[in-house]
Amino acid sequence: MSNIRHALNIKREDDFAQWYQTVISEAELAEESGVRGCMVIKPWGYGIWERIQRLLDDRIKAAGHENVYFPIFIPLSNFEREADHVDGFAKEMAVVTHHRLIADGEGGLKPDPEAKLEEPLIVRPTSETIFGDAMARWIQSWRDLPLLTNQWANVVRWEMRTRMFLRTSEFLWQEGHTAHATDAEAKEHTLTMLEVYRACAEEDLALPVIAGEKPENERFPGAVETWSIEAMMQDGKALQAGTSHYLGTNFSEAAGIKFQDREGGEKFCHTTSWGVSTRMIGGVIMTHGDDDGLRVPPRIAPYQVVILPMLRDKPEDDALLEYCEVLRAKLAGQQTLGEPVRVLLDKKPGKAAAKRWDWVRKGAPIIIEVGGRDMDNGVVSLIRRDQLWNMESGKANFQTPSRDEAGETIPAMLGEIQQAIFDEAAARRDANIVRDIDTMDGLRAYYAEGQKAPGWVEVQWSKPTGPALEKVVEQLKELKLTVRNVPMDRPDADGTCIFTGEPAVERIYVAKAY
Amino acid sequence: MSNIRHALNIKREDDFAQWYQTVISEAELAEESGVRGCMVIKPWGYGIWERIQRLLDDRIKAAGHENVYFPIFIPLSNFEREADHVDGFAKEMAVVTHHRLIADGEGGLKPDPEAKLEEPLIVRPTSETIFGDAMARWIQSWRDLPLLTNQWANVVRWEMRTRMFLRTSEFLWQEGHTAHATDAEAKEHTLTMLEVYRACAEEDLALPVIAGEKPENERFPGAVETWSIEAMMQDGKALQAGTSHYLGTNFSEAAGIKFQDREGGEKFCHTTSWGVSTRMIGGVIMTHGDDDGLRVPPRIAPYQVVILPMLRDKPEDDALLEYCEVLRAKLAGQQTLGEPVRVLLDKKPGKAAAKRWDWVRKGAPIIIEVGGRDMDNGVVSLIRRDQLWNMESGKANFQTPSRDEAGETIPAMLGEIQQAIFDEAAARRDANIVRDIDTMDGLRAYYAEGQKAPGWVEVQWSKPTGPALEKVVEQLKELKLTVRNVPMDRPDADGTCIFTGEPAVERIYVAKAY
Repeated sequence: MSNIRHALNIKREDDFAQWYQTVISEAELAEESGVRGCMVIKPWGYGIWERIQRLLDDRIKAAGHENVYFPIFIPLSNFEREADHVDGFAKEMAVVTHHRLIADGEGGLKPDPEAKLEEPLIVRPTSETIFGDAMARWIQSWRDLPLLTNQWANVVRWEMRTRMFLRTSEFLWQEGHTAHATDAEAKEHTLTMLEVYRACAEEDLALPVIAGEKPENERFPGAVETWSIEAMMQDGKALQAGTSHYLGTNFSEAAGIKFQDREGGEKFCHTTSWGVSTRMIGGVIMTHGDDDGLRVPPRIAPYQVVILPMLRDKPEDDALLEYCEVLRAKLAGQQTLGEPVRVLLDKKPGKAAAKRWDWVRKGAPIIIEVGGRDMDNGVVSLIRRDQLWNMESGKANFQTPSRDEAGETIPAMLGEIQQAIFDEAAARRDANIVRDIDTMDGLRAYYAEGQKAPGWVEVQWSKPTGPALEKVVEQLKELKLTVRNVPMDRPDADGTCIFTGEPAVERIYVAKAY
Repeated sequence: MSNIRHALNIKREDDFAQWYQTVISEAELAEESGVRGCMVIKPWGYGIWERIQRLLDDRIKAAGHENVYFPIFIPLSNFEREADHVDGFAKEMAVVTHHRLIADGEGGLKPDPEAKLEEPLIVRPTSETIFGDAMARWIQSWRDLPLLTNQWANVVRWEMRTRMFLRTSEFLWQEGHTAHATDAEAKEHTLTMLEVYRACAEEDLALPVIAGEKPENERFPGAVETWSIEAMMQDGKALQAGTSHYLGTNFSEAAGIKFQDREGGEKFCHTTSWGVSTRMIGGVIMTHGDDDGLRVPPRIAPYQVVILPMLRDKPEDDALLEYCEVLRAKLAGQQTLGEPVRVLLDKKPGKAAAKRWDWVRKGAPIIIEVGGRDMDNGVVSLIRRDQLWNMESGKANFQTPSRDEAGETIPAMLGEIQQAIFDEAAARRDANIVRDIDTMDGLRAYYAEGQKAPGWVEVQWSKPTGPALEKVVEQLKELKLTVRNVPMDRPDADGTCIFTGEPAVERIYVAKAY
């Protein structure tokens, strides 16, 4: 392996954080905008987001939701009304105070003091309170329930330390908001959407995730229950990739979301909310990226196959392009993973080898080069991005199927790649979950300084609440750990609480996290 | 006709503005949000926008553009740098001045004086200046050109008088931004995108439009040329439905967008920008709506066919649902207008007749009712929304094809409806363009008070500029008229200028406008 010359000038093992920034830059996913904490999402990055949007939107609609759009501005008074929610979000939000600029007398501009808003407007950090206002208008009787809505939108949270895709002042997301007649139905819907997120993460993004409930201290501000999907990054840290909240009647009581039940009585609705964001793309990078750049799972790749003709600015180019076009058309006419194959015949100027490495860094699942000799032999030179290197030779791992064979086998190959990179991530995740630590000393040793990329530890605890929980949180904080969630698919607790020594109530995952 | 009981409580001819608001409310398209000038777009309205987005996005991508996403915030200094642009937009914009709230000491919240931004941020009214910053980074040589980008985003302009869809403080749109090596190429691209808009308006939204260049005084702030598509509403007023701008090197010079040409010299890029917005939906309402509500062109209808089983909460319902499901599945498996038929089997509780009128007001192109008797006879009861009334009987114009026949003929029928409502709008538009007025007195008489829904007048003018143009603008303002554009498809001028008496240079449309 030592003779492999990787396509990035930095390796994951040397500096994971720097490697992450390098991939974002070299794969042309995004860049700093110059506006504090906000990024510019470039075509390849936005193309991945469009794919995630399309697939998740289909899943959300299939679960009965309708899309809507609510204002970006929320009046300050909406936040004043919901105390818990304010505590969680009021701290860092963008506040609009004026609606006009005027000359500042020095050749510049300033907010016009005459155009100060009577009530400041908040750029939405999330939209529970303004959806709540509408739900109160829209819902009268049990016949109006359940109300199942979703919106795709930008939101702003004034983060102090930002990192592209993972934590930006502005980000793109979807936020679902639903209202139900009973707590049971609302709780069930919270889990239905958690399952939608799990399926999207695992089947579309090839991100293996653990679905479970967050502990009390990690709940969304104003929620009764918060559930999450958590993914393990290659440095062993956890990434919360999506959350689904059962809000009880907290927001209903604040906004007056009431309905007349079948018996004629008036009741508050039980509401839910749930969201995933462009943060998912950060998860894709840190799960599937390697020392050559990004690897995009075929299902969310804007192009699944990129064909690079080795053009020479000569008359022979026409025949070569025609040869490539036959393959492009054949692939585009076929289905893979339930959709037409997305294939690009890249005719842009530039040397084929340089373009090959551009597409390697961007992570196109299959890259095909075609030169004059390939054409003469009726073949193509094909690289699977997930099997880039021939480990023996240290060279790029080209296959040379006939053009016709490539046209026939690529759709199935894309399905294999989707599965292969999921399996690879799942195996790594499983290998880095430790289940045999049952003392705080053991935990300290595992996460001791200098330990290389430790993973997650499953421990048992007594599910403390209030001050007892705060004490546990402090203990974990010393190790830079947090409770990720209470996994849904693990056996019941059968031991003692690692923190208190009391009989354990449930199993939890603890980990370092983004 | 007098015995027809229309589905709205107001007619277009009685109060067009009030009728417009009523359609928006009764068709459940949108509603006031309580946040100044911002609306909530409801599922049926947002579904129409999603259809427009999907179709227009395909056209924009087919023209070679890639989607990106830029920050919602633009630093104040970006506006200070481009004087013409500022004059046009600086007046009314949302200004973010703080990034935190704190308790106000009276149980409420206020912006934290400690968290005042050093430089205020503007919520984007349009993004030329921030795209310009990135273009300056991305473009080095002629090889990087043309740069063809687009974004779907929300924008905010602090409008004093707002009207849903037509003029709202926040609206949704796409904005394209491109950079080119030469003025000729940039100008050609400006017209390419104008043609994309024309095709989208006419073929997708069934809105007949006039494409042409705006006069100098109506140009986008900072543009060298502004082109528009203009549609005629049923009250005779014009609606600017999309604009495409050639920006020359104005924004390039402000942002430093330069490239090295093939000869090694450094030049400024020529840029374009172009946008259409949720305003288009206002155009659809005012073009295709009638006294029974909205009529949605099939191509942009979220559902093209709605099937309403007359359920009775009895065991027979199952057979009826099965009977309807066969038709639904048959339709969903077929194509119309190049896509699968979008069909809803509406099982929600409620009386079929009430639900029929809901869907009439919403404007579903084809509404099908199925009762027990229909099932026994093997038929369905079908209404074409564009042929709602039987004028002789004054009753709803039901057809009763066999279920199998309906399954076979509906895809083609949807194509006919798309064409029919376009033809209807085009005929009305053509009947309301007057071409034989060649004096100001004639113009005054045509637009005199009390004149019922006058249309547009084509006049010839000498294409005045500067102060001479201002004088013309004043003359038109007295009649509440504006120059809409210089149509592309009309013969050369051959007369005298209606304003100055000089030899005419071109033909223009004048009209009242939204």
